[in-house]
Amino acid sequence: MKKDNLKTLKGFRDFLPQAALAREEVFRKIRTVFQKYGFLPLETPVLEYKEILTDKYGSEGEKLLYQFKDRGEREVAMRYDLTVPLARVIAQYQNELAMPFKRYQIAPVWRADNTQKGRYREFYQCDVDVVGSSSIIADAEVIACLAESLKSLGISELVVRVNNRKLLNAILKGSGIPKNKTVDAIRIIDKLEKIGEEKVREELALLGINTKQREDLFAILNSGFEDAKDIETKLQDYEGAGELAELVEILLEWGIKDYRVDLTLARGLDYYTGTIFEFILPDAAEFGSIAAGGRYDMLIGMFADKDIPAVGGSIGVDRLIAALEELELIKADLISDVLVCNLEEELEEKYLEIIKQMRDAGLKTDFYYEPAKLDKQLKYADKKNINFAVIIGADEAKNNAATVKNLLTGKQTTVKQTELAAKIRKI
Amino acid sequence: MKKDNLKTLKGFRDFLPQAALAREEVFRKIRTVFQKYGFLPLETPVLEYKEILTDKYGSEGEKLLYQFKDRGEREVAMRYDLTVPLARVIAQYQNELAMPFKRYQIAPVWRADNTQKGRYREFYQCDVDVVGSSSIIADAEVIACLAESLKSLGISELVVRVNNRKLLNAILKGSGIPKNKTVDAIRIIDKLEKIGEEKVREELALLGINTKQREDLFAILNSGFEDAKDIETKLQDYEGAGELAELVEILLEWGIKDYRVDLTLARGLDYYTGTIFEFILPDAAEFGSIAAGGRYDMLIGMFADKDIPAVGGSIGVDRLIAALEELELIKADLISDVLVCNLEEELEEKYLEIIKQMRDAGLKTDFYYEPAKLDKQLKYADKKNINFAVIIGADEAKNNAATVKNLLTGKQTTVKQTELAAKIRKI
Repeated sequence: MKKDNLKTLKGFRDFLPQAALAREEVFRKIRTVFQKYGFLPLETPVLEYKEILTDKYGSEGEKLLYQFKDRGEREVAMRYDLTVPLARVIAQYQNELAMPFKRYQIAPVWRADNTQKGRYREFYQCDVDVVGSSSIIADAEVIACLAESLKSLGISELVVRVNNRKLLNAILKGSGIPKNKTVDAIRIIDKLEKIGEEKVREELALLGINTKQREDLFAILNSGFEDAKDIETKLQDYEGAGELAELVEILLEWGIKDYRVDLTLARGLDYYTGTIFEFILPDAAEFGSIAAGGRYDMLIGMFADKDIPAVGGSIGVDRLIAALEELELIKADLISDVLVCNLEEELEEKYLEIIKQMRDAGLKTDFYYEPAKLDKQLKYADKKNINFAVIIGADEAKNNAATVKNLLTGKQTTVKQTELAAKIRKI
Repeated sequence: MKKDNLKTLKGFRDFLPQAALAREEVFRKIRTVFQKYGFLPLETPVLEYKEILTDKYGSEGEKLLYQFKDRGEREVAMRYDLTVPLARVIAQYQNELAMPFKRYQIAPVWRADNTQKGRYREFYQCDVDVVGSSSIIADAEVIACLAESLKSLGISELVVRVNNRKLLNAILKGSGIPKNKTVDAIRIIDKLEKIGEEKVREELALLGINTKQREDLFAILNSGFEDAKDIETKLQDYEGAGELAELVEILLEWGIKDYRVDLTLARGLDYYTGTIFEFILPDAAEFGSIAAGGRYDMLIGMFADKDIPAVGGSIGVDRLIAALEELELIKADLISDVLVCNLEEELEEKYLEIIKQMRDAGLKTDFYYEPAKLDKQLKYADKKNINFAVIIGADEAKNNAATVKNLLTGKQTTVKQTELAAKIRKI
């Protein structure tokens, strides 16, 4: 096979051990928090019947589906997100599932999108959803769960912007913007952070929204609020204000003070029906929203024969990991604890015994299979980020001793072979 | 969407929470052991250029590839196993990787095979491999690592059958079987467990192997051995006997006594070049080999510009999980610790406070979002396999107390609200 042909497809990636280990560790921590909040895993297939996925993502989204005919001439498509498979599962197993159904799924999805920095064709999504409850407590729980997940990764500063789609719709209506322009107006407002208020006003004008309407709209959108009561007082004329106030109250109850009510938060997706939110990291704001979500009470109904309310959120794994690297929260982790060096062929039995002792003590232990110069072995240990080298040459062997070298500090100590694992555990 | 269309493709599966949780737990335990043995994760894409995967699996295997043209008219195929992507990675990143390269990968693969009981089109493989060493210690390490992985899941009885392909080839040669019939003869011997010695002899006869040759062959194949020394003595005329003896010696050194030297073990795959092995569970023998592998020193060379020795093994996740269920090592696990019941609307704030207390203490905590009859809530807890219900009604609230009901035993106790998490932790 020619060397040139040894490559992955554009937008697809290999994760070599160091990166893969960091990702596994991130997923493990997130999973632990998800379970603490009562969410349980769900696994769905990578391939679905194509008709399950079509007419769900809009015409732009649908163009990005990886789809083909399988050998049995079935029209199939690769998973595009984790929400539509969830909706299928809810509809398909309605009678078996305990409702409300709280699930998480951490899995790759595929989109034949244009690739650019940070955008891939194969990437992971990491979703939590509560299906089958209209309670605002569920909305707050999704937000609290995501906040704690992010904090469990070492992120100290985060802000969650919160808003409510019902409220945003009511405000647009209150400013005299006709109903048939609401969706377009929301898409324009969604670009506020990207293009600025001036441009947004211009685009709204092009939509036929007059000066007076724009003034009224921004007067409200730019309001600030002291607390939940303040939201209810200032926005009492608008539907959805009560929901937003309740959300804020529960978040405070749970000790989440880093929320920011932001009436300009719109979130692009059409299907949101209530609470919407997004997380940003003030210390790594350039990565944009790291996690986001909202309530979508009408989507599951596309599969089930009735409407089923739902709320969920999703962590953008690639952005998150890029941000963690930026914040130095993912370090070049030590990936094994110990390398047992191999210096003398006749000591092989001794080395095998020491390796067993290490592993029995739970230490991540590597062995240099062939006898070789110590230098070469220490280079291998360095390349693999191994913390300790255990060195037993002829001299040490005579005395049932071993030299332990801390490869980070360079410090060496000599210990009894029988105490090796215990000593290394303590260093 | 019509109810009839709500289904997964044939050979593809959903894993609902209970099953998904059990699988996650199995993977977590296996991963922990893999890391202890110095193996590190590798992730490769689901889609590869088709030419990476073609001409690697034989004509029968190749028919099972999921392949298609993507929107950019590239010929692509879905991952068929984890070994060929590993070989690509080794060749592609030769200069970056610390060699020997020890990796594990636990990931789904796809084969458009006929479905039958226990055979799926989407299924997980779970592989460990050492690339870049010819040392028999690496062979032993793979076996030891798989043995400990299986034991970490609660399996107490397991047997690993070991053999060596060089040795088997030498024995075939020694019996006078011509070299051009070796591969066919190995395929026939591989069926020994399935069809019995009588049938194997018949098939060998059809291959043109005469009575004398068959007698000689089985005289050796059926030998038993006391220990490593015995292997070397009895088989001293055959190439590969030394490797097998060394393997046995190292396994014993590492306390693995449950090996069985079995010269009839052939393993179907053509690419093995030395050690071969397979694990069976005597208490669940009907599941066949749960894990297997061997040395394959020529495969990586198909990608790299030189031969690179390698040895690896793979756990059959679906068989393993079926066997664990059979052995009652996967129980209907408790999937959350606590349900905080919701009885009085005006106590919502209290419930939220209790939930926070539980989660801060690390308990997996669920809440019934809407006030409802206790009965209904306990049914929900039962369906979700929740261990404890925390019940605070008007009476308890007055006394800052809570009733804790153990849903497994039915036992109830009343405790101070402030001590709830600590008490539940202790029960």
